[in-house]
Amino acid sequence: MSPMRVVKTVHELQAMADLERRAGSRIALVPTMGALHRGHLSLIDIARRHADRVWVSIFVNPSQFDAAGDLEAYPRPLAADLAACRGKGVDAVFVPEAREIYPAGSQTWVNVTELSRPLCGTSRPGHFRGVTTVVAKLLIAAKPHVAVFGEKDFQQLAVIRRMVRDLGLDVEIVGGKTVRESDGLALSSRNQRLDTGARRQARVLSKSLDAAERAVAAEERDSARLLHLVRSEIEKAPRAEIAYVELRDPESLEPAPPRLTGSTLLALAVGFRPNPGATGAPVRLIDNRVLHLPPEEENSP
Amino acid sequence: MSPMRVVKTVHELQAMADLERRAGSRIALVPTMGALHRGHLSLIDIARRHADRVWVSIFVNPSQFDAAGDLEAYPRPLAADLAACRGKGVDAVFVPEAREIYPAGSQTWVNVTELSRPLCGTSRPGHFRGVTTVVAKLLIAAKPHVAVFGEKDFQQLAVIRRMVRDLGLDVEIVGGKTVRESDGLALSSRNQRLDTGARRQARVLSKSLDAAERAVAAEERDSARLLHLVRSEIEKAPRAEIAYVELRDPESLEPAPPRLTGSTLLALAVGFRPNPGATGAPVRLIDNRVLHLPPEEENSP
Repeated sequence: MSPMRVVKTVHELQAMADLERRAGSRIALVPTMGALHRGHLSLIDIARRHADRVWVSIFVNPSQFDAAGDLEAYPRPLAADLAACRGKGVDAVFVPEAREIYPAGSQTWVNVTELSRPLCGTSRPGHFRGVTTVVAKLLIAAKPHVAVFGEKDFQQLAVIRRMVRDLGLDVEIVGGKTVRESDGLALSSRNQRLDTGARRQARVLSKSLDAAERAVAAEERDSARLLHLVRSEIEKAPRAEIAYVELRDPESLEPAPPRLTGSTLLALAVGFRPNPGATGAPVRLIDNRVLHLPPEEENSP
Repeated sequence: MSPMRVVKTVHELQAMADLERRAGSRIALVPTMGALHRGHLSLIDIARRHADRVWVSIFVNPSQFDAAGDLEAYPRPLAADLAACRGKGVDAVFVPEAREIYPAGSQTWVNVTELSRPLCGTSRPGHFRGVTTVVAKLLIAAKPHVAVFGEKDFQQLAVIRRMVRDLGLDVEIVGGKTVRESDGLALSSRNQRLDTGARRQARVLSKSLDAAERAVAAEERDSARLLHLVRSEIEKAPRAEIAYVELRDPESLEPAPPRLTGSTLLALAVGFRPNPGATGAPVRLIDNRVLHLPPEEENSP
């Protein structure tokens, strides 16, 4: 096995991609912002199943952060990340400087309009424009056959799929199932910012999704009642501040009808306040589940 | 020589590109909106000098037109265009339907912010967003090593160069010199919309650029006087309506300083009214020249 390459420039990565493609190898890219956890590692495993070469990008993308403080606070454990990639047999890691991705005078943005607006787009203006711009650049740099993204960031995945389809980018987008802690909390690099109390309470997120799934299995089809149920579950955590709990079409992200049918996305974002008396902003977590509702029988009473 | 291929889908073009690239061939793309004239043919000649395969795209891009009427009026002589490409030994022509480039539900835009604002951007909001979006899609579809654009559309070329640099697209952008009629009028598919009187008067555009070049050779360095000279030349044509005459930095497109130095873009857009009594909107023509001013000697009196 050849040693893992660490690549810093777009030019070098494109040259590598051209060589691999000429040799008939398939390339899979796993774009990340580093601080790799088991969720990322599961995406690397998926990538391996789709390709001969697995490349990981590690780039904390400034343009998708709304607050400068959030960008600065983002963890950057590069040595550990590289070791984790090596341990997974990753073939190359792309670790560009910000100036490589946003050269001086940069002014080009890739924007997916409708899908970027609701849910996280409402409270994070410009966030998805940053995501789509950097993902377009990473796909252009790595020229992969496949790129793998986690389903935890459901809206991000939907926005990226639409961008790839609209631009005609010659890459298959694969979603990876959300990986969870034993109590159900979805893995996220933000989890390490939770204090002990908030961490314990954060389990309400997956519990509220489970409750929704059970309700749907028990024939609940009323959108308002389902949302009320989910909110009630979350509000059992005193430190939880709901940003949104919504039911939407999984592809168009348009609001679900009052009476649910077919596949429906249940998406939520919740902030968890720090210990009373402690300083610091709430840690915002997201989670989601696609609920599968059987079609209503016609002529039912 | 194998016969020219006519390709209608992005998928087919990408498969062709992959095969050519694997075989080590260089691809040059000449993106056009059809209605090919000698200006386009000169771009095809340039493309041939840069590559083994020359591909031409013919697509009247709806998203770069401001007025629906202008889009409808745009000439579409496809049979003649294909014959012209065949005559030039073009290897493939890409003639997608609008739905192929803008699939149902399309909502992804590529936008170059600052460079798209001045000059033609002022009176044509959204025009360059349409241009950069379609050019990004065409470059993604054809995966060329080189793409050739005319220098007549100077701002378009500047915007495209910036987009390619910012996104890291692995393609060399080559500009082709403006081709002119014997009286100096820059070739444009819009010229055929001029009536005889307007056509004769349209020669003032290149004459005004010549006058500016002579003035600069005679040591004129005052921006305001140079602009006045150019406007006076254009206003000799009674049917001319100046949209803009401007001096700008050729790369950043920022306004030139009052005292000119170095390379300076002189760009103009002028509408030509139809025959008095005739109906129809003025035909808007553009032209430009990069003026090369020697640096001022220090300590000059």
